[in-house]
This record gives sequence, C-alpha cells and structure tokens, in this order.
Amino acid sequence: MTLLLTFPDEAVPAQRLATALQIDYATIHVHHFPDDESCLTLPPVLPSTVVLYRSLDHPDAKLVELLLATRTARELGAERIILVSPYLCYMRQDMAFHPGEAVSQRIIGRFLADLADALITVDAHLHRITHLNEAIPLPQACNLSAAALLGQFLLEQSQDALLLGPDEESRQWVEQVARVGDFDFGVADKFRHGDREVKIRLPDLDYSQRRVVLVDDMISSGHTLAETAEQLYRAGARSVDALCTHALYDARAARLLNQAGIKTIWSCDSVRHSSNSVELAPLLATSLTEILN
Amino acid sequence: MTLLLTFPDEAVPAQRLATALQIDYATIHVHHFPDDESCLTLPPVLPSTVVLYRSLDHPDAKLVELLLATRTARELGAERIILVSPYLCYMRQDMAFHPGEAVSQRIIGRFLADLADALITVDAHLHRITHLNEAIPLPQACNLSAAALLGQFLLEQSQDALLLGPDEESRQWVEQVARVGDFDFGVADKFRHGDREVKIRLPDLDYSQRRVVLVDDMISSGHTLAETAEQLYRAGARSVDALCTHALYDARAARLLNQAGIKTIWSCDSVRHSSNSVELAPLLATSLTEILN
Repeated sequence: MTLLLTFPDEAVPAQRLATALQIDYATIHVHHFPDDESCLTLPPVLPSTVVLYRSLDHPDAKLVELLLATRTARELGAERIILVSPYLCYMRQDMAFHPGEAVSQRIIGRFLADLADALITVDAHLHRITHLNEAIPLPQACNLSAAALLGQFLLEQSQDALLLGPDEESRQWVEQVARVGDFDFGVADKFRHGDREVKIRLPDLDYSQRRVVLVDDMISSGHTLAETAEQLYRAGARSVDALCTHALYDARAARLLNQAGIKTIWSCDSVRHSSNSVELAPLLATSLTEILN
Repeated sequence: MTLLLTFPDEAVPAQRLATALQIDYATIHVHHFPDDESCLTLPPVLPSTVVLYRSLDHPDAKLVELLLATRTARELGAERIILVSPYLCYMRQDMAFHPGEAVSQRIIGRFLADLADALITVDAHLHRITHLNEAIPLPQACNLSAAALLGQFLLEQSQDALLLGPDEESRQWVEQVARVGDFDFGVADKFRHGDREVKIRLPDLDYSQRRVVLVDDMISSGHTLAETAEQLYRAGARSVDALCTHALYDARAARLLNQAGIKTIWSCDSVRHSSNSVELAPLLATSLTEILN
C-alpha cells in the first residue's frame, strides 16, 4: 500500500501524479497560528510507503513543514518515505565563494537526506557536482531531466526555432532540448555583477528574422533573460520567447521580461505559476514506479 | 575564547548581552536571493566556544538559518555552541490533540538539540512537561524565569497593582511576579473556541477602583487579554495594563488591546517590539556565565 501525501497549495500537480501512479492521495491539513507557527495534521494511520509531494521554491517555511510532516509520518506508520520535490532548493551554493560562507547545498542536502529514504527532483541546478547524491546523500536520489518533455512541447509550438542558452551554465539544458527536436542552438556568455546586474555576449550566429526561444533551467530575477532578449532584437531577431523548467519569477520580473520583448514564457508545473504549460506527472510517475517496485 | 554571534535584526539585545559578559561580538551577514533562499556568511575563523543569539518568534525561516549557521560554525572551528533563544518556538504543541497531529514541541526540540550543545531560553511555554530538557534533549537546556525582573520593574511602576492571570496556564507566571513585590493577584478561567474566540470568567475579587495589571508569558492574538480587560472595566477597575515576557502581537492585535482599554503594555526584549521595557541581558548573562565556566 502506498499513499501520496501533499500540502494544500500543491493539490493539483500532486493529484495528477497520484492518478498517473494509480495510488491513493491525501492532503496534509496545515493550520497557521497567529504567531506564524504551523500545526500539521496527517491522516491518522499511514501505510508503510508514503510518497510526499512538496516542491521547494521559497523554501524556508516549507523545509520546517517537511521536518514536521516526515517525523510525524514515521510515528504514524510510514516505514519508507519517498520525497518528490520537483523543484529542489539550495542547490546553487555548492561551495564557499567567500571565506565563512555557509555551503547551503551540503547542509540542506544532509537535512533532506535525514528526512526521507529516497528523493526525486527535476533539473536540479548542479554545477560543480555530477550526481545528486553528492548533495543529497541518499542511495536513491534521482535528478530527472525535463528536456524530453520540453523539446516535445517546443516542437508543437514551432519547428524552426533557434534555441539560445543565456550562459554557460544553461548549456546542458539547451543542448538536451535542442537534440529532441533537432533545433539550431547557441549559448551566450554571461558576466555577472551582483544578483541583478548582468552583461551578455551573444554567440556569433545569424539572428536575422529568426524566432528565438531562450532556454534555461529556471527563471528567477529575469535580468539575464531580459538583457539577452534586448540584444537579440538588436541583432535582428523576429521574436523572442522563453522556455524553462522552473518558473521562480514574480510579477515584477514578469514585467521586466515583457518590457524586454519576451512574448511568451512556458514552464513546467514544478513551481505553481501562471506560465505553467508542461506537466511533469508522466516523468515523475515513470521514475517513481521504478523506485516503488 | 568565546564569541557571541547573532543576526543583524537582533544586534541590539545581543550586543547588550556581549557587553554584560565582556566577550567579543559579531553579526552573521545574511543575503537574501530573489527566490528567497538565504546566503549566510560567518566570521571566517571562530573560537572553540560560540554563543549564538537568536530569538525564535516567527520561527520557520529562522530555524533554517539556524541550521545553516550552526553547521557552518562547526566547520569554521566552533567545538561548543551555546544557543541563546530568549523566545523559544513550537513549545505549545506538546501532544497530539487530535489523531494525526504533528507534536511539534518534540520534533523541533530534537532538531534544536542536534544543532547546539546547550540552550538557554526564558519563560518557555511548558505545559505538560516540567523540565525543558524533556522537550530539548540536551544536558544543558535552561529555562530561565523573567519573574524577578518583571516583578522588580512593576514595583517601580506601581506598588498597589492587582495582578491578574487570564487563565490557568498563566498561574505560574502571575504567582511568581506577585511574590517579588508582594502584589495581590488572581487567576481567571478561560474557555477557548478556536484560536481567536475566548470566554473569560474573572475570579471573585473586588476590582473596584483597582489598578489591574494583566500578567502572562506571551501576548499573541490579544483576544484573551482584550476580553479580560473588558470584563475588568465592567467589574469596576480603574485602569488595566499588561505585562508579559514575550510580545508576539502585531499592529492589529495592538489596536484590539487598545480598544479594550489596556493603557500600557510592557514586555521583555526577547522579541523585538515597541512594547519592550525590560532588558533580559542581566538574567541571560548570569546563566551563561555558569555554563561558560
């Protein structure tokens, strides 16, 4: 017996996953006290295997709720907890860039490994490490790629798009998506000054009258993509759209992207967002089925 | 060598404590990324003993920062970490009141015990347990009482106040404060319906023309005190003020308390608040000195 548990704000994608797996589904009841403490209530009796669905954007409160939920699930009978976090937090700080800095990838990775028996995520932002279990020390730590789903989706939108990754870190994603639909692609160079100021150098391609689609694992402040789009229009592009796995950007960033001429943004449903266009349930279900059997 | 570390928003009370202890003092640098992840930077070399000052009101993000800070402090040389949390979170949910509820006191208690070697707090809201180390399983888990400081403070304001605890849970605090200044005191009965709806029955005392001071460990939604104050005025009280250790109430609750005729509220500086009137540094310093030696 397996039960899929989630939090109320993620009921929709979690339910899609439960349906794909043909397993039962329940939401954790969350009550917030006036002083911002949370009280969680789980189904009072749990089966031996629990799939806990929780994406970890805007992570801090969610991490504490995850601690409360997993510890309580153990007490209620769960022997095996599989954490499904389509977006995985704190993966970028994988070393101390300055003396004294917290290496949050390692610390949060160990914290999560202590809560669950297995973890599934999608397009985790791994830079200096190759395998997710170097960050999340679990025997089963799966970092799935949304590239096939994204490439297939893009083929339905346009067969002659030119894909562009805004920086070297995006190369792994743009290459994989391009391969699915045999798209032309390139990767720009990015020079960063602080969180919000970026300079972009486009690769030497012919952008004239091309439909360009920017591809990255996540969109956050939007500065990188906005700067890239402006350069693309100056280089003659006919249109610029964007495709990402994780839409972490807020309304302010959306305005910035719009002002830069990015017409449409498509994202996976890993982070609930108005740009969600690609459902991850089939991808997650395939991986979960392997782990469950 | 001992260093006191804290977070920027608590620099003032932390510095007062460092001064009382005559030890060095530093703040952790906290940078928030646009997607709400935090990057912490500690002094790059730490002495073997670190006192980490962090009050835990509105706790979830602070708990994650505490995880990042303590794990990083260990890597930077701290062998002994003493956590000073003047306000301690998640102490109220000490049992499952309904089947399936997370017993957050136990879960968060173990989480904190795993981060530090000793913990000091003030007036933790312990109900069904006697000693703090039943909640925080550490050999040194000290729950200090602010009663002497509060009683002394109240003597300076008024020598003939009638102290009133709004419910049975407040008895331990009102009794202790009353003893310091030999104040008259009583304890009301509270009947609760949900978080915000309460009914109060005053003890059978003569309130006519008395200056009443409500005493409790914390003020949160303010509903209990507002309801009590209204009854006290109906019973003839001349004035109603309030005294608490932890001021967890927001502007909305402040208006409610004001509308109920509560003239002045005094609190300790455990939670930064405009009502702060009593400094805890001398109390914390005495206990810390014992632990450090």
